[in-house]
Amino acid sequence: MPATPSPSSRTRSWWGWGYADAHPDDAECSAMGALLPGTLARPLPIPRIADLSIASPGVTPPATLAHLVTDAPEARAAHAMGKAYRDVVRSLRGRPGRIPDLVAHPTSAQDVADLLDWAGEHRTAVIPFGGGSSVVGGVEYRGDAHRAVLSLDLTSMDRVLEIDTTSRSARIQAGALGPVLEEQLRPHGLTLRHFPQSFEFSTLGGWLATRAGGHYATGRTHIDDFVQSLHVVSPAAVGASWRLPASGAGPSPDRLFLGSEGTLGVITEAWMRLQERPRYKASASLAFTDFHRALEAVRAIAQSDLAPANCRLLDPGEALLSGASADGSAVLVLGFESALTRVDDNLACAVDLARAHGGRGSVPTADGGATADAAVSAWRSAFLRMPYLRDGLARMGAVVETFETAATWDRIPALIDAVRTQVGAAALKATGNPATINCRLTHVYPDGAAPYFTVAVAGAGGDELQVWDDIKAVATDVLGQFHATITHHHAVGRDHRPGYDRQRPEPFAVALRAAKHALDPHRILNPGVLID
Amino acid sequence: MPATPSPSSRTRSWWGWGYADAHPDDAECSAMGALLPGTLARPLPIPRIADLSIASPGVTPPATLAHLVTDAPEARAAHAMGKAYRDVVRSLRGRPGRIPDLVAHPTSAQDVADLLDWAGEHRTAVIPFGGGSSVVGGVEYRGDAHRAVLSLDLTSMDRVLEIDTTSRSARIQAGALGPVLEEQLRPHGLTLRHFPQSFEFSTLGGWLATRAGGHYATGRTHIDDFVQSLHVVSPAAVGASWRLPASGAGPSPDRLFLGSEGTLGVITEAWMRLQERPRYKASASLAFTDFHRALEAVRAIAQSDLAPANCRLLDPGEALLSGASADGSAVLVLGFESALTRVDDNLACAVDLARAHGGRGSVPTADGGATADAAVSAWRSAFLRMPYLRDGLARMGAVVETFETAATWDRIPALIDAVRTQVGAAALKATGNPATINCRLTHVYPDGAAPYFTVAVAGAGGDELQVWDDIKAVATDVLGQFHATITHHHAVGRDHRPGYDRQRPEPFAVALRAAKHALDPHRILNPGVLID
Repeated sequence: MPATPSPSSRTRSWWGWGYADAHPDDAECSAMGALLPGTLARPLPIPRIADLSIASPGVTPPATLAHLVTDAPEARAAHAMGKAYRDVVRSLRGRPGRIPDLVAHPTSAQDVADLLDWAGEHRTAVIPFGGGSSVVGGVEYRGDAHRAVLSLDLTSMDRVLEIDTTSRSARIQAGALGPVLEEQLRPHGLTLRHFPQSFEFSTLGGWLATRAGGHYATGRTHIDDFVQSLHVVSPAAVGASWRLPASGAGPSPDRLFLGSEGTLGVITEAWMRLQERPRYKASASLAFTDFHRALEAVRAIAQSDLAPANCRLLDPGEALLSGASADGSAVLVLGFESALTRVDDNLACAVDLARAHGGRGSVPTADGGATADAAVSAWRSAFLRMPYLRDGLARMGAVVETFETAATWDRIPALIDAVRTQVGAAALKATGNPATINCRLTHVYPDGAAPYFTVAVAGAGGDELQVWDDIKAVATDVLGQFHATITHHHAVGRDHRPGYDRQRPEPFAVALRAAKHALDPHRILNPGVLID
Repeated sequence: MPATPSPSSRTRSWWGWGYADAHPDDAECSAMGALLPGTLARPLPIPRIADLSIASPGVTPPATLAHLVTDAPEARAAHAMGKAYRDVVRSLRGRPGRIPDLVAHPTSAQDVADLLDWAGEHRTAVIPFGGGSSVVGGVEYRGDAHRAVLSLDLTSMDRVLEIDTTSRSARIQAGALGPVLEEQLRPHGLTLRHFPQSFEFSTLGGWLATRAGGHYATGRTHIDDFVQSLHVVSPAAVGASWRLPASGAGPSPDRLFLGSEGTLGVITEAWMRLQERPRYKASASLAFTDFHRALEAVRAIAQSDLAPANCRLLDPGEALLSGASADGSAVLVLGFESALTRVDDNLACAVDLARAHGGRGSVPTADGGATADAAVSAWRSAFLRMPYLRDGLARMGAVVETFETAATWDRIPALIDAVRTQVGAAALKATGNPATINCRLTHVYPDGAAPYFTVAVAGAGGDELQVWDDIKAVATDVLGQFHATITHHHAVGRDHRPGYDRQRPEPFAVALRAAKHALDPHRILNPGVLID
């Protein structure tokens, strides 16, 4: 997924996903709404910052920090929440989350340390903020235990500071958005090759703090595996791990901060492992009449040594929505990539495995270049477009929830069935309307897979948040029944706390709580996330 | 490296490596000593437990725990130390470490919890003990801050409790030695495929607690990557993580306990990822005149997608010692394995890369089975024999230190040169004798490698420990100069504390200390290891 050049030339939406000019217009929203029984007759209007009531800031920064901090209403509104469905609806319904008092744009680790010191002295909560694309309530403030709220926007720290081509690695500031960092790596023939769906609108620091999952289906699926070292600024300590390809010296220091979601410290930069840009590509898609046989096909491929870059199984609804199939088939999209050798043989091997489990093939497209077969292209465009469409549906009064998980293979078929049944029933009960529930496998492992669910249902007259809460509670409960993780790559934030509290093993809870208290003695860092 | 059957039928050495009947005899010791100028004329005698002065235990277990605990001198002596060179010499010189008061053999997690409760009430230090093969002082007690010392031997908990063939995973008790667990997996056609040099004499729990490195050179080199979930018993909390193929829910709970070396809790069982047994194998070895060009060859292979199972570069001294070459060449041993497909093409590709950097090839041996070419076999036998030879050299008054590290490629050549120069000078200064310093690369990564050094020098009249300390201090300092890890897979224990204290980043130190205090409020768990 190549970077989009010059993201700065387009305007980001303050209330919805991505770029303002990419939002579906009223006609498109109405057309989507028509597909979902019970939605509104016409879209809710796009909200305006001018309609928000924004209070004066509760604190004033000292003169030494004033140049880093703004209280402009536009900046504050755009930092009030992430981009979850809940966040979009709250904006549409004129009930946004608490708007931060101030937004800071530090330009160095020292700036971050100074801001944390000042915030600690003034009981000011600090919400680290990268691209602001959290879909789990990870970048907002809830409650009133603090005197003020500071949104700490890292995006002014967006430089690749150093490149080591011998070891294929780079030292990168945490605030670099995906396209911004890839643009700086490209002249060296290298890439981080981490492409989450939010790629354009999320930062390296955000990926690290949330253990983001990339686009690739197997192997090193999460950003975690690309980390050589982290530089962390906590209220109680500052420091970097040594830059190492591997180590067995005590528990991994980096792994405690990966996924810490801004609660233990602020990641200001990282040495990251890079890769050569792939030169050889080959892809194919196969249709399956029987979804459960398709699951067996994917398991066979995941347990082979083939390591496809892409191995997405779309259930019939998902395949229909993305244009990959129109006849009620499930579709498996396979892709292989390599910088070194042709990958046609691997693709052929994977296609054989899929056929042995009932897959009917489009002929594989071996290309050695950038083209891919039609289903793959259709899927890719739809993938990037999805969050925009979600916002369009929200404007039509629909309730949309996407959630993802992971479990071992023995539980996958029953888990997917249980989600359909129980979440479907909850949505119907809450709204009186039938829900659409689609599923795809985004990442696969020898021992399990990561299913991703999309639930869409017409709300019932302005109570979308209540409906969402009902659906989310049942979804969380189903995952808990199967001991399936509350999140494979969307993070915990505030929205996943009930599930995470159930999942987190007690010895780790004790350790994390103690670490939090020691590193953040004034309890200012992203309060409410992960642990109290 | 296939398991040796029925380890129980042979007697373990209480003072030296492995099986008592595998130790070199006096003649072999003398022959080895003759190769190292300045060693003793005849070997030191094998030490006897009867010559130790073993005090009465300082505590008595309650009746409810008595059946789990022994104070037999043989058991206590065999649990006094690990199997580092330092430990062997202390036994040979009649100055062993503190002998534990008691040895416990729990049979369940509840037993472990009960023993920890009792120890906490009686200021008794608890030293978790698996196979006892620590080479870093990880399983002994130093100091006198506790009333008594209990060695907690987990080897009675050695069962594979559950196997999920669909997800290829197993729930295994922590006390299972390598051969013991592989024997239970074999009927299912599955393997953990984790083969450290200590395979026969170390346990799953020991591997997990120390982040052990296996035999395979690339990819999932450490045990960490095979963990689905851990069950941990800490004084303050007990619990297991959910069994997951991957997760993004907060920091990895397992990664905090992996490498915690018994300081945060006792790992009592784990769900582990398994693999099919490989069916296809191919191997080759190549000779290099220029070691630095050989390093470039290895880097090229490590940065390819080829993922060899074995990619060991032996410097000329190491190649000579293991019989892989006798003409002063460095030797690269390459091996590929797969359960699914032939690997000859991958081997050919790797050999081509090696030749492009000056490698002169033995013809690759593609075998699809168990045989391998002569250099590979020679290397493998020598590999398992090495620790026994070390003990034989110790009996000749030689000082032997093996240490390993990892660093990014940009630092590897200078690091290896600096170790040779500085450690060689230190050994000469301490003994007046010239040292032999050999190096091999054991594991390789796209961004770096793990060099393993063996230093051997004749001691100077009974002060082997002082000489060892001098050499170790310089070795630690050289690694620190290059920010190379104090250990890639041998753990920290007590011997690596100075290096680890320097390496550990301050935010993680704060967190680890807090976690330790919270999980182990009476400070009984493996005191002195990792952090105070």
